Amino acid sequence: MTTIQKPSVQKSSVPADLLALDARDPLGHKRGEFILPEGVIYLDGNSLGALPRAVPARLAHVAAQEWGQQLIRSWSVGGPAEASSARAAHDWMSLPDRVAAKIAPLIGSAPHEVAVGDSTSVNTFKVLAAALKLSGRRVILTDGDNFPTDLYIARGLGTLMDGLEVRRVSAASISAHLAPDVGVLLLTEVDYRTGRRSDMAAITAQARAQGALTVWDLAHSAGAFPVDLNGCGADFAVGCGYKFLNGGPGAPAFLFAAERHHAQAPVVLSGWMGHAEPFEMAREYVPAPGARRFLVGTPQVLGLSALDTALDVFADVDLKDLRDKSLSLSHTFMELMIPLQNRFPLTLVTPQNETERGPQVSYRHPQAREVMADLIRAGVIGDFRTPDILRFGLTPLYHSHADIWQAVQGIGTVLEARS
Amino acid sequence: MTTIQKPSVQKSSVPADLLALDARDPLGHKRGEFILPEGVIYLDGNSLGALPRAVPARLAHVAAQEWGQQLIRSWSVGGPAEASSARAAHDWMSLPDRVAAKIAPLIGSAPHEVAVGDSTSVNTFKVLAAALKLSGRRVILTDGDNFPTDLYIARGLGTLMDGLEVRRVSAASISAHLAPDVGVLLLTEVDYRTGRRSDMAAITAQARAQGALTVWDLAHSAGAFPVDLNGCGADFAVGCGYKFLNGGPGAPAFLFAAERHHAQAPVVLSGWMGHAEPFEMAREYVPAPGARRFLVGTPQVLGLSALDTALDVFADVDLKDLRDKSLSLSHTFMELMIPLQNRFPLTLVTPQNETERGPQVSYRHPQAREVMADLIRAGVIGDFRTPDILRFGLTPLYHSHADIWQAVQGIGTVLEARS
Repeated sequence: MTTIQKPSVQKSSVPADLLALDARDPLGHKRGEFILPEGVIYLDGNSLGALPRAVPARLAHVAAQEWGQQLIRSWSVGGPAEASSARAAHDWMSLPDRVAAKIAPLIGSAPHEVAVGDSTSVNTFKVLAAALKLSGRRVILTDGDNFPTDLYIARGLGTLMDGLEVRRVSAASISAHLAPDVGVLLLTEVDYRTGRRSDMAAITAQARAQGALTVWDLAHSAGAFPVDLNGCGADFAVGCGYKFLNGGPGAPAFLFAAERHHAQAPVVLSGWMGHAEPFEMAREYVPAPGARRFLVGTPQVLGLSALDTALDVFADVDLKDLRDKSLSLSHTFMELMIPLQNRFPLTLVTPQNETERGPQVSYRHPQAREVMADLIRAGVIGDFRTPDILRFGLTPLYHSHADIWQAVQGIGTVLEARS
Repeated sequence: MTTIQKPSVQKSSVPADLLALDARDPLGHKRGEFILPEGVIYLDGNSLGALPRAVPARLAHVAAQEWGQQLIRSWSVGGPAEASSARAAHDWMSLPDRVAAKIAPLIGSAPHEVAVGDSTSVNTFKVLAAALKLSGRRVILTDGDNFPTDLYIARGLGTLMDGLEVRRVSAASISAHLAPDVGVLLLTEVDYRTGRRSDMAAITAQARAQGALTVWDLAHSAGAFPVDLNGCGADFAVGCGYKFLNGGPGAPAFLFAAERHHAQAPVVLSGWMGHAEPFEMAREYVPAPGARRFLVGTPQVLGLSALDTALDVFADVDLKDLRDKSLSLSHTFMELMIPLQNRFPLTLVTPQNETERGPQVSYRHPQAREVMADLIRAGVIGDFRTPDILRFGLTPLYHSHADIWQAVQGIGTVLEARS
């Protein structure tokens, strides 16, 4: 196992203005709800969110009691004979719906428009196929630099749907390519490399004006800042449970299907858990009401339970506070990095304009892969992304401005040692 | 929560011949590797396997250490700088492969022919689509009484593939319906209601003779008795992690793709984890070697870890012993039930012929739903299946013949009380 050294800079030297920002941070108390390793500044919550303190006990309970003692009865509690409190605590059948209800307010949707389960990739397949069939067209337009799995999933759909074209263009030219034959526009709101945030409302409106439906990938949005899918008129969306929602490695993902599409959208991955009456074992598929029809197989109870508990961290969080702090952290980070940009071959690729900035800050560096390896050894954990990106994720629930200051000191030390 | 009463019959009255069978049971020591609730005879391991004793500690370690302390580094340990022991214990990237290697010998396949992840339903979609494309035909032939999700998934595929026909016939007439236009034969080896086991070798050969590929659903086979996919010449298969493999509620499922199909089978759910180099973030999809290409999104680490530990229970199990004991348990069950069949409206629907018998015993009863509810309250946990099936799963790893005797006493008491 890699030995992690503590960053050598002491907290006492953090500038007073940053300490003052932390002192009046309305989210400062949230850090105590996470477990973070000693001696590490963790700037990779956009790859894997930190462990919420309450999760291990929940997992232990699910394993020992709900599985070990209640066994199959955990699927059937919550029937008429059960008290509602027992239902709330133990009913595995309603677990996906309970988690969906916690995600819905984070993304500007109603609970019955959200389905939780499977992976982001599989959910992308579901909604992309549904949207394409609804559109009656055969072209998917997407950003050629979109996260690869979005591109691959679109490609895979093409192996099944005759005549499907996946049209990949630059992010900057999306609007210009909204031709009348485009059925679905597939975009990630925040670019995973640059951290650039798209204007979801404007682009969704443009797509609609051309008769195209939208599928938004919220991987770097949900839980990072307030998302307003219905306010933007989005048609479909997918998102990740293990980044800013802190649901754990490989957590169940979610999808959003706007209510207006429920009746007509085809369910292409039609499994028994999306059936209106799964235990009736009917020969014919009858979809469940709402987005629950997009569930497929048996819900992954361990992962859903961890995510369910992780989402409780958001219960008392004002999403405006979250966004304000995120922008303050990224602004602080970029300001503190300016002296290093002047000394080392770092190029900022994240927009400085707040409306275009997501929850991360990224720089190009010609030896980015090696620099990030050094940084991780030094206890400043970010991400390398091909070909030359140093990516630093900022998570307002468990970062302080002092953390950002310490991280930048660590980055300076590493770059100095390599020069 | 439902109060469970202990079955009122005492162990001391178990017949000597059954106690003698238990005394020489080569699998008798395996029961200690499971945690089972007191006062319950659990005959539903074919819906949800019991909790292996080692799983809670594994989950606690994954949460607190691998996630909480190592964080994102758990995805990248195992590189050249890491000792192989660290890789074996912690590498999340190889976790699906390590679990696949433990499942492979249970189903008569090579490790690189197995992919672990997603649900059985989603995996059915993957291999059904791949098989159908390989066949160049547009007809899926299946048993009209197949498990519903298999039927639903075939239907869903039909919403995407122009001209796809799902032909549903009776199990008894499958051979007669292997017409030259059938591309894929989709069957479950053991019927989930009756427990009837198909002749996989013979049916696969018949299908092949007609140019059709086979997709076998091993939900009630894998871990219940030795399966020999390659010996039977099977093309594709899927199976469940949470029944006889004891991987926990909603555990990751598996699929099998015969090596001869790897190069040509299209990957229709092509996600980044099935890419040859997932972290290179390439624009073009290049499948990973072997069945790993059928992975899609980020592996569900919590569920995979539980399943990984659960499979260790099989490490020292001779699958012939497993099958012998399973048949002995079901024979004992059926024999002990004869007096009850004579007194109550019970109709055995499970074949008495051993070659046709899976790992369960089922009876029709006109009030099956109510009888099973009473049985569960009395601590004899089986399953009701529509329309009128009482289903009792027999799991040789944690059942004794004495358990079977006690269960039948409980069934008698419940039926007596209702008459």
